[in-house]
Amino acid sequence: MNRFQFCVPTDIRFGEGQVACLPEELAKYGKNVLLVYGGGSIKRNGIYDTIRTLLKDFHVCELSGIEPNPKLSSVRKGVALCREHDVDVILAVGGGSCIDASKHIACSVCYDGDPWDLVKDRSKMTKALPVAVVLTICATGSEMNSGAVITNEETNEKLEINGPILYPVLSVCDPTYLYTLPERQTASGTVDIMSHVMEQYFQKNDGAYLTDRLSESVLKTCIHYAPIAMEKPDDYEARSNLMWASTIGLNHLLTVGKGGAWSCHPIEHELSAFYDITHGVGLAIVTPAWMRAVLSEQTEARFAMFARNVWDVTEADDRKAAQLGIEKTAAFFRSLGMPSTLKEVGIGREKFEQMAAEAVRTSGIAARSYVPLDQAAIVKLFESCAE
Amino acid sequence: MNRFQFCVPTDIRFGEGQVACLPEELAKYGKNVLLVYGGGSIKRNGIYDTIRTLLKDFHVCELSGIEPNPKLSSVRKGVALCREHDVDVILAVGGGSCIDASKHIACSVCYDGDPWDLVKDRSKMTKALPVAVVLTICATGSEMNSGAVITNEETNEKLEINGPILYPVLSVCDPTYLYTLPERQTASGTVDIMSHVMEQYFQKNDGAYLTDRLSESVLKTCIHYAPIAMEKPDDYEARSNLMWASTIGLNHLLTVGKGGAWSCHPIEHELSAFYDITHGVGLAIVTPAWMRAVLSEQTEARFAMFARNVWDVTEADDRKAAQLGIEKTAAFFRSLGMPSTLKEVGIGREKFEQMAAEAVRTSGIAARSYVPLDQAAIVKLFESCAE
Repeated sequence: MNRFQFCVPTDIRFGEGQVACLPEELAKYGKNVLLVYGGGSIKRNGIYDTIRTLLKDFHVCELSGIEPNPKLSSVRKGVALCREHDVDVILAVGGGSCIDASKHIACSVCYDGDPWDLVKDRSKMTKALPVAVVLTICATGSEMNSGAVITNEETNEKLEINGPILYPVLSVCDPTYLYTLPERQTASGTVDIMSHVMEQYFQKNDGAYLTDRLSESVLKTCIHYAPIAMEKPDDYEARSNLMWASTIGLNHLLTVGKGGAWSCHPIEHELSAFYDITHGVGLAIVTPAWMRAVLSEQTEARFAMFARNVWDVTEADDRKAAQLGIEKTAAFFRSLGMPSTLKEVGIGREKFEQMAAEAVRTSGIAARSYVPLDQAAIVKLFESCAE
Repeated sequence: MNRFQFCVPTDIRFGEGQVACLPEELAKYGKNVLLVYGGGSIKRNGIYDTIRTLLKDFHVCELSGIEPNPKLSSVRKGVALCREHDVDVILAVGGGSCIDASKHIACSVCYDGDPWDLVKDRSKMTKALPVAVVLTICATGSEMNSGAVITNEETNEKLEINGPILYPVLSVCDPTYLYTLPERQTASGTVDIMSHVMEQYFQKNDGAYLTDRLSESVLKTCIHYAPIAMEKPDDYEARSNLMWASTIGLNHLLTVGKGGAWSCHPIEHELSAFYDITHGVGLAIVTPAWMRAVLSEQTEARFAMFARNVWDVTEADDRKAAQLGIEKTAAFFRSLGMPSTLKEVGIGREKFEQMAAEAVRTSGIAARSYVPLDQAAIVKLFESCAE
């Protein structure tokens, strides 16, 4: 079990109606609020009106239209709004995109240069405005962690900033807000949660027994409840368990005592940076392909443990159990309506080399991941799920 | 899944050598430190010297001799020392007793009346000095929660204060500090961890699936590693998993979406308040007796789930599976060298009625626990484990 620091100060308010705490909580920071949201679904489902009513005594300016893969240009717009309106606190209403954009805005406001500088040199990220969240999509875990991923549309780079100043101060998680999610977002959100957990689970450290068991618990929760939420979108129990799974899935709890670079995320980030596909969709394609690519004598024991503890595989032989677990993972993603080939989402072979090179350049996948993969290995992986 | 708030700001520094952070971290609060510890084991194993050397530039005053069930008189002494030396931060070095005494001192310093007033009326607990921790016994979870239990030796009351101002600001958890623990403390600490988890697990809420799975993970960790730590006291992997299990076991994570009053703890608190026995020892006696007492048609499904997911019971019939799980729990405690009757720890029948009445008076056991128990039911429970 590796040494670790765990300090996650975000105040989570979970359950139906918790949004009512906003006026009292936001007032702790000031009266000027930047409201950040996406494409307008919160106007259709009434969440926008609820929040504007709650914030009637605040000065609220808005940044709407945050993209599914939030763009640097949106961050720049947000920074300008914060400076113009002397914003005290940013309120992100949405999923990971809105939260990540808000975090990047929050620290960029306190920095004199261009927001992209903070990606290049994290030492420039020293202060941030407080970010509060009303979660309406569960997937990224950004509501209780210190990371934010932004896409630079000028350079096709999708990269992360991370640091303790980026924890949201408050996250309102109301499972009823998920009732109106399109089926495809429930599905791709679930894949994203499961991928976060698997990225942390498939690492070289074998001594973090408790962390491994906690990870398996989150995976079992996704497997149990995603089909229920797809079938019955207003099932409170299913929505609440999935929502909390997304938070726990990436709030550092499941990386405790472990460590190493991720594998599927850096590969998928290239797909969505170059082709702007939904992150969870890309992960559904890449993850089983990655598992098949890295299964070996060295990794089969952990994949067999995964198969037995997560998928209830009873096969005694490790290699066979591992293979069954991988195929059950792939079948589960397909059962959620996810594609399993790049062709299905309109991605051809033309940029395989370029994307693989970028994945290696911008991440630790070739050096510190569970099974290090170089550019050639990633191209081969793309090939294996091409069509 | 019930509504909940989750906000646990304690900064955990986990792993060998993490104590080195103390000077930098404590300096954030000031130069005057109250060092709180127990019976001197930290002088024998070198932890005391390490800490005094690290704090050579601080003004340190000491409160030693904290009892295994910390007494109100110790709290009063600590408050006097804090006032006399203008203490900025309290450093608890030990287990739950030292941490709980320190928390109670921390908020009593900021209150004008007697420390016991805060137990009677929590609204009087408004401010507290920062408490930092160096953990040397893993059991209570007090290093990452907001509770503190103190015994009033004048009235034989063992009661809790609880509130967000009581979270330690910092907890150093070095598994190597557990290497010198006597076997009996490893055993009783494990029982305490497991009891915390079971108190939260055995509640009426069935919708908190993820929380139940996380709880089972912590229980499995205790069952896996306690025998290893007893056999080989310096097994780092075993000690580190048990240490983190104790923290996770009672830092609110396992009560998320659930709720209700506890059962075994209020019963055991009377045993240790009246007879000053070790908390974990009392729990080892009370817990199986409680399980047998409350097993019924209404509870057998949850006990069967516990048996199957924690103890790998494969029995298909719920009642039989439940019974097997209960007997496996009892057998495990015995395998750790724990007693299973009150007679073994010198407790006779003379105070059964009085202790049962006090348990009902000072807790929610008769109204809000998994299976509400009145005074007569608790006496019957005492009888069932009398000898």
